[in-house]
Amino acid sequence: MDAKTFREFGKAAIDYVADYMETIRECDVLPSVEPGYLFDLLPKDMPENPEDWQSVLKDVDRVIKPGMTHWQSPNMHAYYPTASSFPSIVGDILCNGFSVIGFSWICSPACTELEVVVMDWLAKFLKLPQHFLHSTEGPGGGIIQGSASEAILVAVMAAREQAVKNMKQSHPEMSESDIRGKLIAYSSDQSNSCVEKAGVLAAVPMRLLSVGDDLIFNGSILEKAIEEDKAKGLIPIICIATMGTTGTCAFDDITSLAQVCNRNNVWLHVDAAYAGSALALDEFSELRNGLELVDSLNFNLHKFLMVNFDCTAMWLRDANKVVDSFNVDRIYLKHKYEGQTQIPDFRHWQIPLGRRFRALKVWITFRTVGAEGLRANLRKHIALAERFEKKLLADPRFEMVTKRCLGLVCFRPKGDNKRTTDLLSLITERKKIYMIQAKHRDQHFLRFVVCGMDPKEEDVDFAWQEIQTQMDVVLDKKLVSAVKADVNSISQQFSKELNISNSEKSK
Amino acid sequence: MDAKTFREFGKAAIDYVADYMETIRECDVLPSVEPGYLFDLLPKDMPENPEDWQSVLKDVDRVIKPGMTHWQSPNMHAYYPTASSFPSIVGDILCNGFSVIGFSWICSPACTELEVVVMDWLAKFLKLPQHFLHSTEGPGGGIIQGSASEAILVAVMAAREQAVKNMKQSHPEMSESDIRGKLIAYSSDQSNSCVEKAGVLAAVPMRLLSVGDDLIFNGSILEKAIEEDKAKGLIPIICIATMGTTGTCAFDDITSLAQVCNRNNVWLHVDAAYAGSALALDEFSELRNGLELVDSLNFNLHKFLMVNFDCTAMWLRDANKVVDSFNVDRIYLKHKYEGQTQIPDFRHWQIPLGRRFRALKVWITFRTVGAEGLRANLRKHIALAERFEKKLLADPRFEMVTKRCLGLVCFRPKGDNKRTTDLLSLITERKKIYMIQAKHRDQHFLRFVVCGMDPKEEDVDFAWQEIQTQMDVVLDKKLVSAVKADVNSISQQFSKELNISNSEKSK
Repeated sequence: MDAKTFREFGKAAIDYVADYMETIRECDVLPSVEPGYLFDLLPKDMPENPEDWQSVLKDVDRVIKPGMTHWQSPNMHAYYPTASSFPSIVGDILCNGFSVIGFSWICSPACTELEVVVMDWLAKFLKLPQHFLHSTEGPGGGIIQGSASEAILVAVMAAREQAVKNMKQSHPEMSESDIRGKLIAYSSDQSNSCVEKAGVLAAVPMRLLSVGDDLIFNGSILEKAIEEDKAKGLIPIICIATMGTTGTCAFDDITSLAQVCNRNNVWLHVDAAYAGSALALDEFSELRNGLELVDSLNFNLHKFLMVNFDCTAMWLRDANKVVDSFNVDRIYLKHKYEGQTQIPDFRHWQIPLGRRFRALKVWITFRTVGAEGLRANLRKHIALAERFEKKLLADPRFEMVTKRCLGLVCFRPKGDNKRTTDLLSLITERKKIYMIQAKHRDQHFLRFVVCGMDPKEEDVDFAWQEIQTQMDVVLDKKLVSAVKADVNSISQQFSKELNISNSEKSK
Repeated sequence: MDAKTFREFGKAAIDYVADYMETIRECDVLPSVEPGYLFDLLPKDMPENPEDWQSVLKDVDRVIKPGMTHWQSPNMHAYYPTASSFPSIVGDILCNGFSVIGFSWICSPACTELEVVVMDWLAKFLKLPQHFLHSTEGPGGGIIQGSASEAILVAVMAAREQAVKNMKQSHPEMSESDIRGKLIAYSSDQSNSCVEKAGVLAAVPMRLLSVGDDLIFNGSILEKAIEEDKAKGLIPIICIATMGTTGTCAFDDITSLAQVCNRNNVWLHVDAAYAGSALALDEFSELRNGLELVDSLNFNLHKFLMVNFDCTAMWLRDANKVVDSFNVDRIYLKHKYEGQTQIPDFRHWQIPLGRRFRALKVWITFRTVGAEGLRANLRKHIALAERFEKKLLADPRFEMVTKRCLGLVCFRPKGDNKRTTDLLSLITERKKIYMIQAKHRDQHFLRFVVCGMDPKEEDVDFAWQEIQTQMDVVLDKKLVSAVKADVNSISQQFSKELNISNSEKSK
């Protein structure tokens, strides 16, 4: 494809995306396709010769779009939001235009340095402790990782290697495999699945500790577990706390966890994937408590900070602990500025060698939206969730499961779990809005999350209308089946009496 | 930003990228900036209020572009190529337009199913063994991973978990930590740094075995190592072979390695990051030998298959071995089609939970380029490297270090290592072309790789001209310093004689 054709195709794609966003409310949020639908629509082999872009773009509309779950629709209320924004999309066009692999400074100075700049902008925007800034003295700094999963895994692996190194020094009588066999990590049973997975991947048992009814993981729960494990001769290495759990957006007690970690020489990582953005709002300033004591922290710009997936911010109090653990250098990767202060070689901060110029979309989004715009977007999400909460509280058929938190409302129809499941089934089958259920102890509940690129009040009203209507159907069905049961019982009774009466007649 | 502004900004970005590509030969391939250049050009804080997109785009040109290493320039000859293509860039616009997180089928059926389709297209295009296709019976299939590093790490971690599971069953007397402490993995000392890093990250010692002067890792080298380790009570779990090493593009002997792995119940993974694309060419059909015996395989479409980074294809003979190892499920991730045949939940095949709709850019590139176009692009790279090789062989000042392989020529100025280093320093300082050096045993050499989005014959001629001219300078300098040394020696001798003569006079 030559540049001229690219100009046409690219601009048509821009219009396609703009049109898509402008008409997204016209689509059901969930697709109406069965598994395998696409296999019959596409050829079994790659075409031998080029096709024109017009027919490809038509096929995007004809075969791809009908198979999409529309995450940018305001009728998406499942999982957590996945940010998208127009400037972020443009940022990725430019990133792909340059198409560099910025694993070290020389591979594109702008790629590394812009990441340093935007990570410091972001740290200040969130009012994080100074030691997380690249621009302050010391070994701290931020990096863009591909996902919260990777950020957490990096922390677990680095904590593991640090612990092995330290133990080898302090206990030269122990073999490395003895040490590795005794390592243990902690999180709460409310943490995201990727925390448990990080334990599996890093080959470090991850104890998911039960928390109380408030769903908060705190220092005393952790301390008890550490004491138990130390008594068994195990070596605690890391604790993963959560700010904004996936189920209910609960906030772990960072300060008390940090104190316990500190006393026990345990790395404290905070997964703030969803709720981290709220640090930017002074009305949530208490969320910043304890952060001065944590070793590392991640949150997703691709949740509600308007930058496309993949974009997870991660800060390290001492990046050398990661670099020392992961550095396996080769002559062909060396360059003369390597190891200079303030110019990190980010390849040693992450799992893969290669890295995209993701800072570009962050920078372009921040500049065209502005700090106040980012805060306004956060506040809009929160206000929309409050609007939903008010409506819910006014309907006596429902109950809240936990307090509303940011853009998340956890609720359920009063009564048994079946009612919740029935309601969700009906709603999911109709595809007008998409929610998912979660479980706390033995109670099923629904999660209503404000999502989509540009949610509005009328979208919340639409969702609430749908939930109410389908609740009516659930209750109607319950009524119908109750009536049916009564009719059955009456008719059985009647036929029994009829039989008796007949048999008496025939006597 | 509203949709109208996005249409303007997006189209301006398309033009910027098209202009950039059309004028890329005008830029030095390496930037003329010093570390930290960007910190003085940008404000220390995020702007409070939005700026217009025009000034942002101007800044991309003013502050970002001068700090770029131009990987898409045909004067880039370092590392390996990083694919970019116009249709692939458009594919990512649409991916970001939909902006979904396709971790399971319900999260966007098209996202999962298109990946199944294009991975099968690709497997057929490369003539891979049938069992790697999703569409054949059995547990095999392909997935798009973010990078070769991740694909290799996935293989190592899965092999580790499988080995632990199997050993626990066959040796119930051993503790899990005993088993884990005995695991060992193998690769060659020519494999990419990410293989060694995979060992570090997975906490499995990775023995990098020395290979002979042919740089080929074969079954007898592996077998000897396995026997040594088994004698020590260790448990061999995986071998990483390479098709196209980073240093010299050497090809390991897959068939003999596979036989040894098979006899020893060791997982065989093939890292074909660069050279995998060559499987598409029948003139390289011998490269396919042994692939029917391997357990997993990765190669980078973002090397020379015209799809933007990040795009690593990975195939598994038995995907269940990964899924069983990594699956940590949660109620909020479950959906009713989970676990169905041919509809993989790719989240269990990879490290992170989230995943972009990367299949879109693959599909759009394959359709607009066509199989014959992809093959032609590969053959063009090879022909350009041959052109370079011919020129080199005609200049008696240089020698080849290994045979040319695909788009890579490894060469050096005859003589000591300093000559190689001096030549590279001169070339790098001039920034007209970018190469890197590598080392084999104690010999330094230069790697000339055909790279860039659209390299042509005149670009190879330009590079060769630059290398020749700078070699003249190196030799001139050598001449000058040799003359200088002679002059010094003569003048010392003269002054010595003068002193003697004077002292004799003064007697």
